[in-house]
Amino acid sequence: MPTDIPSPEGDAAREQASYREHLGAELDAFLSEQQAVLQEVSMESLPLLDAVSALAQGGKRLRALLNYWGWRGAGGAELGLPAVRSGVALELFQSAALIHDDIIDRSDTRRGGPSVHRRFSTAHSDASWHLDGTHFGSSAAILAGDLCLSLSEEMFAAVGAQAAHGTPARRIFNRMRTEVMAGQYLDILEEVVGPTHEPERAVVRARNILRYKSAKYTTEHPLTLGGALAGATTELLDWYSRFALPLGEAFQLRDDVLGVFGDPAQTGKPAGDDLREGKRTVLVAYTLALGGPSAQEAVASGLGREDLDDDGVARLRTLMEDSGALAATETLIEGHTHAAFDALDQMPVDDVTRAALRSLAHAAVTRTA
Amino acid sequence: MPTDIPSPEGDAAREQASYREHLGAELDAFLSEQQAVLQEVSMESLPLLDAVSALAQGGKRLRALLNYWGWRGAGGAELGLPAVRSGVALELFQSAALIHDDIIDRSDTRRGGPSVHRRFSTAHSDASWHLDGTHFGSSAAILAGDLCLSLSEEMFAAVGAQAAHGTPARRIFNRMRTEVMAGQYLDILEEVVGPTHEPERAVVRARNILRYKSAKYTTEHPLTLGGALAGATTELLDWYSRFALPLGEAFQLRDDVLGVFGDPAQTGKPAGDDLREGKRTVLVAYTLALGGPSAQEAVASGLGREDLDDDGVARLRTLMEDSGALAATETLIEGHTHAAFDALDQMPVDDVTRAALRSLAHAAVTRTA
Repeated sequence: MPTDIPSPEGDAAREQASYREHLGAELDAFLSEQQAVLQEVSMESLPLLDAVSALAQGGKRLRALLNYWGWRGAGGAELGLPAVRSGVALELFQSAALIHDDIIDRSDTRRGGPSVHRRFSTAHSDASWHLDGTHFGSSAAILAGDLCLSLSEEMFAAVGAQAAHGTPARRIFNRMRTEVMAGQYLDILEEVVGPTHEPERAVVRARNILRYKSAKYTTEHPLTLGGALAGATTELLDWYSRFALPLGEAFQLRDDVLGVFGDPAQTGKPAGDDLREGKRTVLVAYTLALGGPSAQEAVASGLGREDLDDDGVARLRTLMEDSGALAATETLIEGHTHAAFDALDQMPVDDVTRAALRSLAHAAVTRTA
Repeated sequence: MPTDIPSPEGDAAREQASYREHLGAELDAFLSEQQAVLQEVSMESLPLLDAVSALAQGGKRLRALLNYWGWRGAGGAELGLPAVRSGVALELFQSAALIHDDIIDRSDTRRGGPSVHRRFSTAHSDASWHLDGTHFGSSAAILAGDLCLSLSEEMFAAVGAQAAHGTPARRIFNRMRTEVMAGQYLDILEEVVGPTHEPERAVVRARNILRYKSAKYTTEHPLTLGGALAGATTELLDWYSRFALPLGEAFQLRDDVLGVFGDPAQTGKPAGDDLREGKRTVLVAYTLALGGPSAQEAVASGLGREDLDDDGVARLRTLMEDSGALAATETLIEGHTHAAFDALDQMPVDDVTRAALRSLAHAAVTRTA
């Protein structure tokens, strides 16, 4: 539609574009300040911050945007500084999580470039440095992630009194971090415990991991955080959760399906990479629960094998389809999506906020990459 | 001396013992709260917090104690809650740094027990889990360190308005974290760049690393942080730095010497472990700078070799003595120690604080383990 005809959708898009600009400017200014701190230590320490900057300046900004509309829906001022700063804090937290996640998952790429540990191991080999370049890469990435995590919090503290100890927003921020780390631990535990461990409970465990590792912190916590910063009522925060939690679950389930069945040309990841990494998704859990002993055996022997070839990938895919696991996952996605949009329709927010959230939700659950 | 005769030393010791109790109780209460959060996620996530707790409940508490006397010296109330909480935050930060440091240094032991990554890799092999147990161990330790780092900050935010954005204490806390991470990065960079890189500048680089990675955050930042929380004047904070920075440098230099020449029965570490780990200390830097090309060659071929035998260790020790590197390091320790005690004598603080700081400083620089 032409942008000069007023509509909630058009207003939301324009405002969101302005917020993105403010977010980017605040992030850049903050990173420049940090650069000065590192320069005082030594010019040679700058690559640590460069790695953080390169990563943090990319991404879809889903968390920051949800946080912003949570703020706006609760009556926060247009482009208010607290919502800009909490958005930067959330994006930095996400970057920190990705840096460490990529070490844990041994992922070589991220946001279209090398992952941070690969960036440092490549610098090592380019310069023909000594000792183990892979270990140097993950060591430097551990430190880059730590720096990024600290900066996330430093920025959150800069939100001010609304984010101080004991405030609703601070409680959400604290809980988010602890839950994500606990969820990630459950995720790596699930991988090593193996696919044959209590397959009948695999779906329950996988859905719990998905909830804490991904869903809550991708959608629910950002939205409620923004709301809490603007002084949202408990009732409104409940509405936010009723919308955002199923949305986050649908989002991550879609991600899991794309990781196995997605088009590599669109996802940017080689087909079957999630299977080679051994990701224990809800899709895999359904395969274990519905496919019986033969499926459990096939998953146990194929999942997590770095040398899994195209035939192996194809066999696991067929198994996921034939066992009904793919269909069960799609049903789950559909149910969550329905619940999310249903809550959004009834949520007591203004039309511009609702339009913005609808657009973000739509992009989250219908994506192909 | 008998404890019933009043003296600054006796008063300091009694007060410090009470502070330790408060510190321990606050830490325990906080970890219990966190346990409840993790239990909500899943009982299976508790080992992550257990690992943090086991580590955080040990240690000499040097940082917390310096922070406390910084607070007291600036007029803070006896056993004041802000100083208790900032002490807990500092100890948690130190624990987080150790967890990640031990992954980076591949250290198997810490504070008399297994390091966190070893704890998890042992759990993996005890339970005969699948996939790579070493990778599981370091992945879980990355997450445990992240959790610990987040908890450190959560506790610091709980100090309240004195630790809010823009306050002197918050600035110190923020800078401490960034500097430590930058210093650690320089440290691993120094290792991979190798001993033959600009040996004439090795001492300058090693002293810079020591300053940022260790000295500032072991002594200067804790002391000034406590002072800033109590509203210390800039003049007093300067005195704190003039005392604590050289103290921290002497402390770390002593650590470096003990790492090579210490008695394993007292240090609890096998002789030569620092050499096998390839630590690029000021002692090593002096050896490179003073020993000439033959020393550089010997260091290059021996340092960082995991299979370095007792003869190899003995050869490097002899080289450090003969090149004058050990003597130069001892001279540096002596100079720093002198500067620290000199500043302490003139520092405008009460007698109890001065006695407490003298006792802590004495323990830090004369230790044998």
